[in-house]
Amino acid sequence: MPHWTELIAEKKQRQLKSIPQEWLVSPPPDSTLDVTGFPETCGLLTAREIEITNTSVDVLLEKLACGEWTAVDVTTAFYKRAVVAHQLVNCLTEIFVDRALARAAELDDHFKQTGKVVGPLHGLPISLKDQICIKGLETTMGYVSWIGRYAEKNAVLVDILIECGAVPFVRTNLPQTVMWPESFNNIFGRTTNPHNRSLTPGGSSGGEGALVALKGSPLGVGSDIGGSIRIPSSFCGLYSLRPSYGRVPYCGALNSLEGQDSVHSVFGPMTNSVGGVKAFMKAVVNAKPWLKDPLAVRKKWHEDEYNLADHGSGKDLCFAIMWDDGVVVPHPPIRRSLEITKAALEKAGHKVVDWKPIKHRLLADTTRNIWNAASSEDYMMTTSATGEPIIATMELDDSDATAAPFRPKKVGITAYQLWQVQKLRRDIRKEYLDHWEATSSETGTGRPVDAIICPASSYVATPHGKNRYTNYTTVWNALDYPATTFPVTTVDPTLDAKKPRHVFYDDFDKGIYEMYEPEIFKNAPVCLQLVGRTLEEEAVIKMTEIVDGALAAAK
Amino acid sequence: MPHWTELIAEKKQRQLKSIPQEWLVSPPPDSTLDVTGFPETCGLLTAREIEITNTSVDVLLEKLACGEWTAVDVTTAFYKRAVVAHQLVNCLTEIFVDRALARAAELDDHFKQTGKVVGPLHGLPISLKDQICIKGLETTMGYVSWIGRYAEKNAVLVDILIECGAVPFVRTNLPQTVMWPESFNNIFGRTTNPHNRSLTPGGSSGGEGALVALKGSPLGVGSDIGGSIRIPSSFCGLYSLRPSYGRVPYCGALNSLEGQDSVHSVFGPMTNSVGGVKAFMKAVVNAKPWLKDPLAVRKKWHEDEYNLADHGSGKDLCFAIMWDDGVVVPHPPIRRSLEITKAALEKAGHKVVDWKPIKHRLLADTTRNIWNAASSEDYMMTTSATGEPIIATMELDDSDATAAPFRPKKVGITAYQLWQVQKLRRDIRKEYLDHWEATSSETGTGRPVDAIICPASSYVATPHGKNRYTNYTTVWNALDYPATTFPVTTVDPTLDAKKPRHVFYDDFDKGIYEMYEPEIFKNAPVCLQLVGRTLEEEAVIKMTEIVDGALAAAK
Repeated sequence: MPHWTELIAEKKQRQLKSIPQEWLVSPPPDSTLDVTGFPETCGLLTAREIEITNTSVDVLLEKLACGEWTAVDVTTAFYKRAVVAHQLVNCLTEIFVDRALARAAELDDHFKQTGKVVGPLHGLPISLKDQICIKGLETTMGYVSWIGRYAEKNAVLVDILIECGAVPFVRTNLPQTVMWPESFNNIFGRTTNPHNRSLTPGGSSGGEGALVALKGSPLGVGSDIGGSIRIPSSFCGLYSLRPSYGRVPYCGALNSLEGQDSVHSVFGPMTNSVGGVKAFMKAVVNAKPWLKDPLAVRKKWHEDEYNLADHGSGKDLCFAIMWDDGVVVPHPPIRRSLEITKAALEKAGHKVVDWKPIKHRLLADTTRNIWNAASSEDYMMTTSATGEPIIATMELDDSDATAAPFRPKKVGITAYQLWQVQKLRRDIRKEYLDHWEATSSETGTGRPVDAIICPASSYVATPHGKNRYTNYTTVWNALDYPATTFPVTTVDPTLDAKKPRHVFYDDFDKGIYEMYEPEIFKNAPVCLQLVGRTLEEEAVIKMTEIVDGALAAAK
Repeated sequence: MPHWTELIAEKKQRQLKSIPQEWLVSPPPDSTLDVTGFPETCGLLTAREIEITNTSVDVLLEKLACGEWTAVDVTTAFYKRAVVAHQLVNCLTEIFVDRALARAAELDDHFKQTGKVVGPLHGLPISLKDQICIKGLETTMGYVSWIGRYAEKNAVLVDILIECGAVPFVRTNLPQTVMWPESFNNIFGRTTNPHNRSLTPGGSSGGEGALVALKGSPLGVGSDIGGSIRIPSSFCGLYSLRPSYGRVPYCGALNSLEGQDSVHSVFGPMTNSVGGVKAFMKAVVNAKPWLKDPLAVRKKWHEDEYNLADHGSGKDLCFAIMWDDGVVVPHPPIRRSLEITKAALEKAGHKVVDWKPIKHRLLADTTRNIWNAASSEDYMMTTSATGEPIIATMELDDSDATAAPFRPKKVGITAYQLWQVQKLRRDIRKEYLDHWEATSSETGTGRPVDAIICPASSYVATPHGKNRYTNYTTVWNALDYPATTFPVTTVDPTLDAKKPRHVFYDDFDKGIYEMYEPEIFKNAPVCLQLVGRTLEEEAVIKMTEIVDGALAAAK
């Protein structure tokens, strides 16, 4: 068997060959940090292709459905921009241009012959995180050991997207093990943040975050077990949704920690508008995923829930803002974005109260204890096939790998011990539910708080290797609450000056405080989360539209 | 600390004192096997009380809702009959007459003052398996170590039943550990089958099965992780439902194997009519249990699903009959009941095809491997507090305890090993789903098979200690398919003669065959299961009504 480094060299060679020569560009030097403008100025895309790729999902779908734009036009435009994006931030894994264009041509033929779309996502190119199998293509998931593993079947989600008329067209980068909030692996290397390449795009769906931010894809599918959709979406300035367990089918995709039946990873959309989030979710749920995935929840898309039937039809909503989680105080840009959002919502006539977090530290620690019950064995079992090293840090200087916060303990626990941890989590879920229900006494609406608005992270995109704290997202996975991200502003060193602070929760909190220097984070997007109740995706999307509208109106 | 036997003596003494002296009767000698007639002839119940207790749930609810019968009348009648039942088959654990009657009186006051019912279950006495906590009462769950454990809160289900107007009025017997398909524990001893006391009522919800069969309760709540609702219901001749995970709230109840997040135990109704099953499920789901239990699924009661919107509105259904599971061939009475049902459905104009089971043995074994990943530690941890022995057999002669089929391995497995077992189960669930979907090619309806009809067990109620095979129910827990039971006939030694058989799947199958002697099982009820798709409770109830109607019409 070849050495693992040889396997990588061979795979990278094949990846390079999969890029059409004529789409190779001369990217700016590494010292150019913000590369978001490059795709439109590099000369590869025509004016029309620039127009297409700058169009939001709703409008794309309309233009495709009326025949104004063909699937081949749209796929070509996004493919070119995706390949440019890749040359800027190293965001792609599998590239399969001919196949995607052939699929797009089939859709165009169908439309020409019948005058009808194939489904609600007709002609929409969709990028997929490198876990989501497409028949006949490799899925390495960043593991050298999985090079050469060609899928015999589509993942259920791919079948459904195809049924809906979408065009799966690229797969995107992620960290080895998928259990890290940045995006680096031994095969494909590191993905960087297009707003500032000295920063991470986050992870684990960091390839998607970077790609969609560069408009190299109108909509990407990420996965999220502890924040892996929402962290890269917030670091890259995107709209996204982490749905509840089972609302979007996972069956047939690859993953780590397989068989872990407690805190599930879920798939969800990452895109440039809340309308894109809705289009994806409605299409996927209406395709009845429970007929193809035994773990998918039999729950139709309910338009009355989208119209906030359970939230007073959306009149006089009461949002709760969580300013900090009681563990780590967010950096100034996050604080400012919460203030902007609060003012916008009040201006729009909604009530805003404070959210009091309970047991967030315990909840997140418990969740990590569930994953780490056997994660070391899981990673070892996979990597041992080729002897590739298990990555222990995402720092640029990896000499201090032992300090890495996401490296699990070497030895797992027993099934009995795991059950005790899972029981603790169950009990906290009940406490949190009661805590939420009890807010009905303070909202003035007769209902409990309609949604929580909170940071997606304690900071914006960090330098590579420095994303060390994920509780702001992980707690909602632990509770199985659906959560969106939405952009609010970008870092402004003047408005977001560092303020002296003398009281800290603990040394960890102090360390995160000390990390902040406005100039480092300049230009980084600032996003927040909107969090709802389990299996309330429809309402969470609508409330995100409301917040988004209030923010736009207040500008 | 007192010896465990002293704790039992003291607890039994208190149980005896909780029975009103005037309700003590002279039960027939043990040699009288069928005691189903005794409650009506013992002289304790008035004619009106006999009428009330012989009334099905729908009609009871109507008479209570129009004020014809008061809650106190109905509760008194069932309580008296329950106490008689207890003296016949030892089915009760907690008895709290004053408390239940006070609650009934409150309901009557409310009705008198407002002219309105409190909720959809107004005045209905409901019995509860001894896991379902009621504030202020002990819940021992058959563990000596839990004597003296008084609940500080109601289980969520009790809160919801009270909100719906029900009267929780007794708690019922179960096996120590709850993981055994019969009902015997060190505190309360053994529950017997009222149709034939030399037989087991099954388990683990055997107290409920025996009580409801004697009409000592109009409706009981059992729990089911591998058949524990459906086995006693089928052994005792009842209608019942094992709902999908999370459709009925479990939060706040006691259980064994807590923290086991894979194959969940669920609560469901056991009663004397399918109308009772529907009334319970509709009331509980409409009470929005997801606002009180974080594991309850946010899915409303859908009347269109009840009206079989997903099954061609109930015209020309196609049922599939599973004659045997490929592991153990059912005894003659079970076979006959399947034939009766097939003929009745065809007469009613429905199509009937054969169901081909796949991987039932592997599926059930995998499920047991998940439970037994840490069940020994779990049982040990509980019993060690008092040193009570862990029961290893439910045989009358317990000298061969080591042969007991439900005694788990002494040592558990690691979390990593557990994940591998859980992964295997997940993969079989996908295979089974695809298998079901593929039947659309043979139904002639354009849909896959609408429901499976199959044995609830390979036999009717067995002699005590002989219920050794539960795969006929356990596979549906593994797949999370909702399943009802419904009665078809009773054992008739002439019609159900033993037939010679020379080919067996294996020695186990042969052993089950050899167990059958018509005279032993005489008079035992024969029930079947109707099995639907995950979270399809509404449709499963409606299809059970259709089968039940067809059976009645064919008689």
